[in-house]
Amino acid sequence: MNGLSEKIYLELPVPTEEDSVSAQERILRALPGKYSPVKLELAVLRKLEPLCREADWKITLSLAWDGEQFRGVELEPGDTSARHYGIALDLGSTTVVGELLDCSSGQVLRRESAYSRQIAYGDDILTRIFYCKDHPEHLEELRLATVDTINDVIRRLAEAAGVSALSIPSAVLAGNTTMVHFLLGLDPFCVFSSPYAVVSDNPGFFPARDLGIQLGGYLYIYPCKANYLGGDIISGVVASDMTDRQEISVFLDIGTNGELVVGNQDFLLCGAGAAGPALEGGVVKTGMRAVDGAVCAVHLEDGEFFLETIGHKEPIGICGSGIVDMLSVLFLNGWMDFRGKLVEGASPKISRREGELCVSYAPGLYFYQSDIDEFIKTKAAAGTMVAYMLDISGIPMEEVDRFFVAGAFGTHINKESAVNIGLYPDMERDQIISLGNASLAGARRLLLDRSILDRIPRILDLMQYVQFGAVENFLELMRAASVFPHMDLTRYPTVAKKLAERRKGSVS
Amino acid sequence: MNGLSEKIYLELPVPTEEDSVSAQERILRALPGKYSPVKLELAVLRKLEPLCREADWKITLSLAWDGEQFRGVELEPGDTSARHYGIALDLGSTTVVGELLDCSSGQVLRRESAYSRQIAYGDDILTRIFYCKDHPEHLEELRLATVDTINDVIRRLAEAAGVSALSIPSAVLAGNTTMVHFLLGLDPFCVFSSPYAVVSDNPGFFPARDLGIQLGGYLYIYPCKANYLGGDIISGVVASDMTDRQEISVFLDIGTNGELVVGNQDFLLCGAGAAGPALEGGVVKTGMRAVDGAVCAVHLEDGEFFLETIGHKEPIGICGSGIVDMLSVLFLNGWMDFRGKLVEGASPKISRREGELCVSYAPGLYFYQSDIDEFIKTKAAAGTMVAYMLDISGIPMEEVDRFFVAGAFGTHINKESAVNIGLYPDMERDQIISLGNASLAGARRLLLDRSILDRIPRILDLMQYVQFGAVENFLELMRAASVFPHMDLTRYPTVAKKLAERRKGSVS
Repeated sequence: MNGLSEKIYLELPVPTEEDSVSAQERILRALPGKYSPVKLELAVLRKLEPLCREADWKITLSLAWDGEQFRGVELEPGDTSARHYGIALDLGSTTVVGELLDCSSGQVLRRESAYSRQIAYGDDILTRIFYCKDHPEHLEELRLATVDTINDVIRRLAEAAGVSALSIPSAVLAGNTTMVHFLLGLDPFCVFSSPYAVVSDNPGFFPARDLGIQLGGYLYIYPCKANYLGGDIISGVVASDMTDRQEISVFLDIGTNGELVVGNQDFLLCGAGAAGPALEGGVVKTGMRAVDGAVCAVHLEDGEFFLETIGHKEPIGICGSGIVDMLSVLFLNGWMDFRGKLVEGASPKISRREGELCVSYAPGLYFYQSDIDEFIKTKAAAGTMVAYMLDISGIPMEEVDRFFVAGAFGTHINKESAVNIGLYPDMERDQIISLGNASLAGARRLLLDRSILDRIPRILDLMQYVQFGAVENFLELMRAASVFPHMDLTRYPTVAKKLAERRKGSVS
Repeated sequence: MNGLSEKIYLELPVPTEEDSVSAQERILRALPGKYSPVKLELAVLRKLEPLCREADWKITLSLAWDGEQFRGVELEPGDTSARHYGIALDLGSTTVVGELLDCSSGQVLRRESAYSRQIAYGDDILTRIFYCKDHPEHLEELRLATVDTINDVIRRLAEAAGVSALSIPSAVLAGNTTMVHFLLGLDPFCVFSSPYAVVSDNPGFFPARDLGIQLGGYLYIYPCKANYLGGDIISGVVASDMTDRQEISVFLDIGTNGELVVGNQDFLLCGAGAAGPALEGGVVKTGMRAVDGAVCAVHLEDGEFFLETIGHKEPIGICGSGIVDMLSVLFLNGWMDFRGKLVEGASPKISRREGELCVSYAPGLYFYQSDIDEFIKTKAAAGTMVAYMLDISGIPMEEVDRFFVAGAFGTHINKESAVNIGLYPDMERDQIISLGNASLAGARRLLLDRSILDRIPRILDLMQYVQFGAVENFLELMRAASVFPHMDLTRYPTVAKKLAERRKGSVS
């Protein structure tokens, strides 16, 4: 391990009148030269006496990297080097997720998450930004809400491991540009307003206490590339290792916004756009979060739905992965045409309610035409971004070696269904890789390997930001991606094959 | 100037959608490369917006050296680079003295001093140390008393210059080992107890706010060499430039303790010993501090005293420089013999009071035999230290090129008188150099020239600490130095000549 922190057990010579060098220097001399120059923090200087004497000069020093040098941030009696923990944090606009790592083994010991206390100031991030505009005291409220949520997660992680958070030397945090501005107490209005020059793009390392974060050592904050391309994406790209390979990768993070990175070790094209909250179940009338009773998988056989629900409860709504399955089965079974229109008469389950067509998928639960229309926008935006990126880089889809999907969404949805409806490209299924919370994964990686700090500037340099709205044929590409799976069916050979088989089946 | 801080005026390009780099990066890119890598502090990040915009991106950034890199610690609108201040501090056990410097010109704009609030916990430093022993809450009281006194001095300096202390990027402080321990909140019991291994010998740079000091940027604390050889002496040695020269210098600081450094660019012998508070007027019965009404100079002509007092007031006591003059005239006029005994009958002014001889030097004011006895200890200690050092290094006194006297004491006493009584060696008078507050002078030097940071480790390395109490012939040397001017009168040719002239005069 070559992580951001180290815990080093030292057996120091007991001072005598002949060897009366200071406790500070006694420790510094005993440290392996590779850590030099180490600076002992004030908190450690204050602990030296009587701790060293009482521990018979057998002590463990925690070192934290501050971006320029190692700092001695904690001192414990005896050998506690095996109890070496670190914290990785994903600062989302809805949820803060943290992991406690055993920095010796690299093992994740515990994961905790908390809804952001920012939500009290608005469900969506723009409301929060406008709340702060020209009101420094409101900005301070948002900052404290952010810090409180992080401290809550850290406290629970530390409690779970039975350690004091103040003894944890290093933490890494990744979040989007707005969230990092809130955390630092910087007005994020610039993130969403012309000329889109943010206040801070690369905050770096801070003593955690300076930010109000209850952690003993240093916190590193992933830099952003641009206003819409935050540290969460840089962290995700690090987690994907796509910049270490010659083969082309596509990295897609779909949430409220969609962020896309295409490239390899030599180039990185990046873009972002509003993807809409369709995949979070927000705009679907019977949509819901992935909690107990949510339909998470849908099968359709002989005209009947077979549903899986979270917690095996009675269905009370449908979540993201269920929606993708639903669209896939509706489309493959001809209940929905390639334009995404429900086919009246294709099944007795299709009826008209509230002035529009809908499918009854469970007692009292309906999936509406308007739900599909909303969803198409997300799918088209994601598909268009990918197509456009490949287009301008002159790379055919066949040359894409890996398709990374970041976010909780990617973790749960069925790959086959996502390909069927054209959300994912039609490639070998094992080339489609779900990274889960990639932002958190990149934070974890850096915590355990500080050499990534040298790679980050290169990643930022490689990144070319593409403004999607600004490109000429964007709307044309969007239209082509607004059908199931795509206007150009040759791009979806496995789906074309399934459709042909279905037609044969219905003919036979 | 190549000081610890810089103020740099920048005219930055106004952000546009084509040039939308962050405000943070916009500043870093505009800074001259020689400062790289610069880290902008959180306080500066928080000021960027709206300050930069409102100042039309014409701003002044203050940089402070933190020991490893420059940090952006303050941001101001417009060009304020000419208003570039720094603070030098001497943290004495009785008094804290501070200077406000114009870092562009190097000029001292103002000096302020304050009695240490530590005095409330004991006049002498040992009382304060025992008060803190095993009582962390008492140590915290002493720490706060120290910080409060420093803040008081800084506040007055800043007010005098009409600046906010928070806009001052750098300060340098020198103090003895105990005082620095108090400032950092470290138990100084170790300074005075075996094995004399102190807690921290080289605290280095701190964000001033971490120490509770109300200053915007970084504070550097001079390192100590050993328990009795503090940062005030290292700073004084820096101020003397003695380590830049091939010729031998002697550096003597006489206060409550006496500290001595002998050497040149190749070696430094150091020692310290209790000199006694004789020179501060403490043990002299009519002694007093150098304030209004204190006798500061004494002449004796035709059996009559001619006194100078501070503020030209009626004499109410005698201060350090007056005492040295007094001893000189008593000795040269034969009112006191070479053993320091008052000669009964030498003058009608010599009489017996309270069971001992004394001299009446002003109406109601007497200088006693016991006063002289106390003083001899100080003089003998200082003289013995110098003699011993030269002795073990094999350097004859004639090879000593400069005799530096540090401390307020040296500033005011009459060189001739100090030679007459053997406190100073009998050398060319212009080779005897009073440095004044050398601790403060070294702080000032470093503030204006950070290359001294590279010299300090070399000075510490060169320094060889000599324990005076431990040497065999110390008492013998002490006895030889316990007469006026010295047992070996050949060491004091000019004094011998004066004595001879006096004898001739009295014979004639």
